[in-house]
Amino acid sequence: MPLVSREIRLASRPIGWPKESDFALAESPVPEPDEGEVRVRNLYMSVDPYMRGRMQDQKSYIPSFQLGEALQGGAVGRVVASRDASLPEGEYVSSLLGWREYFVAPAASLRRIDPKLAPISYHLGALGMPGLTAYVGLLDIAQPKRDETVFVSAASGAVGSVVGQIAKLKGCRVVGSAGSEAKVKLLREELGFDAAFCYRDADLDAVLAQECPDGIDVYFDNVGGKQLDAALLRMNPFGRIPACGMISIYNAETPPPGPANLGAIVQNRLTLKGFIVSDHFDRFPAFSADMSGWISEGRIIAKETLVEGIENAVSAFLGLFGGENVGKMLVRLGPDPS
Amino acid sequence: MPLVSREIRLASRPIGWPKESDFALAESPVPEPDEGEVRVRNLYMSVDPYMRGRMQDQKSYIPSFQLGEALQGGAVGRVVASRDASLPEGEYVSSLLGWREYFVAPAASLRRIDPKLAPISYHLGALGMPGLTAYVGLLDIAQPKRDETVFVSAASGAVGSVVGQIAKLKGCRVVGSAGSEAKVKLLREELGFDAAFCYRDADLDAVLAQECPDGIDVYFDNVGGKQLDAALLRMNPFGRIPACGMISIYNAETPPPGPANLGAIVQNRLTLKGFIVSDHFDRFPAFSADMSGWISEGRIIAKETLVEGIENAVSAFLGLFGGENVGKMLVRLGPDPS
Repeated sequence: MPLVSREIRLASRPIGWPKESDFALAESPVPEPDEGEVRVRNLYMSVDPYMRGRMQDQKSYIPSFQLGEALQGGAVGRVVASRDASLPEGEYVSSLLGWREYFVAPAASLRRIDPKLAPISYHLGALGMPGLTAYVGLLDIAQPKRDETVFVSAASGAVGSVVGQIAKLKGCRVVGSAGSEAKVKLLREELGFDAAFCYRDADLDAVLAQECPDGIDVYFDNVGGKQLDAALLRMNPFGRIPACGMISIYNAETPPPGPANLGAIVQNRLTLKGFIVSDHFDRFPAFSADMSGWISEGRIIAKETLVEGIENAVSAFLGLFGGENVGKMLVRLGPDPS
Repeated sequence: MPLVSREIRLASRPIGWPKESDFALAESPVPEPDEGEVRVRNLYMSVDPYMRGRMQDQKSYIPSFQLGEALQGGAVGRVVASRDASLPEGEYVSSLLGWREYFVAPAASLRRIDPKLAPISYHLGALGMPGLTAYVGLLDIAQPKRDETVFVSAASGAVGSVVGQIAKLKGCRVVGSAGSEAKVKLLREELGFDAAFCYRDADLDAVLAQECPDGIDVYFDNVGGKQLDAALLRMNPFGRIPACGMISIYNAETPPPGPANLGAIVQNRLTLKGFIVSDHFDRFPAFSADMSGWISEGRIIAKETLVEGIENAVSAFLGLFGGENVGKMLVRLGPDPS
């Protein structure tokens, strides 16, 4: 009997907020690896807000998902059958072939990961794309200086939690916003933020004035919308705003009005710069060296929220937009490495 | 009888659109110059949109105008009495002491200008701050490459008209928007723009799609508001938006909603960068050499709109917001140099 892999397919293109019925759990036979190929059992897969954009049929920096086909996304797994001597059975690899339990791919297309460096799931979070996003956006684009104030939204998320901790390492005053008092407590007590607040129902202008008494030099924007608007009003001259994502508008059927305070861009000579991590893969080696050092020294804490089983991957994805995660939202697809 | 200078004072801080009654024409005696000082007769003074911000009582990059005191702004004039051997009577100087007919100031605080280089009024326009604004914003901040598409709003204005012409010199496809069909004709037929359109009542998305078939690489934003919103939707990946001013919102009593299409900043990795010309005075020598060359070769045409007499300075200023100028709006305060 051939090996069967469960996978998640796009059943219909979501309009506004995605629904469970926009997705389908299906089974697909897993072929035998050809010469040069390996078969991989995924152990963890990543769900990320940017995947929402790929569900639309639109021109973008990354191809749209196709209806009726399995989704794609970051995953780490273990080689369970190999026809390539360079990547034997038992090795761990990172790929963009998540949303399925098994796959077969050319060995050369996979990145090997070292399970002794850190828990393998970290390669989807602090040691993977979210970590690199934080690293590039903060250090390369925003270039914070010691004693500057860094404000980060979605600060308890996969990217934001790393941004804040790197900024602390660089000697900045760090302020974060999050969606619940429990997350705020985490930021202050576990992740070392100087200040944190819950953005829901907050008077954002007042709370930013209080928590950023010297203004904001860097606003690492993960959300857009009202927090961007309020931050603009509080930015110091020559402030920098790396724009990493705008989760507040991803599910809007028509875009909501933008920030009314955009005049501050001219007045205070601000730079608002959008970026996409895939343009910055050349920074991976430096990032990887720095980040694995910081993690092993205990200077960066990699937070994770784990959901069990591919049958729960869709609800994990949907949960991102309700803020159900702390740190990296992951789906555990198989047994941990022995 | 002492010499008397007429001057324009700020009578009240405008709310929303400024009114004539927010200003007062007054007379002030002109002192004799002390040792090291000169007395200057202003010949031309500049009115500029940024002055609107200085009429508010707010923290900004430049001090607010004070109630009951004369306004300030760029002016060129002629030394009519001198007690400094380095700046004799008859010389021409540029200063920030406009909005008055005469002033006395230390010779060392004034910049001498060469009346043989170009008409002296050009030092308030293409050879002055608006020209430097265009030069820095386009060449230093946006860095357009040959064959890229450059879109500029307020393209027949003091800054925009120079932006478009420099962009043409650099081999770009240049598209401009302006507020009347007469201005559009000027852009196309006299200033060498590849395309131009009237933004009033236009379907901006449609007209930008038509006039910028290869997208927009650089949007030089002088206005903010709806044109910025439409341009965002049309920007190519890695596009640059130098934000020079947002005249569309200067007179708003409460800021209107910002651009709904700001998500494009992330999606297309755009850079929106505000700048203020006074941060870039180090570029003046290079600018001045380039620009005077381009003007003398006939490659840049310096357009001007002249209003006669200080008693009409306020209406000239107010006219900026109604688009009554083509090129640099100037007030002629005295006889042309003999």
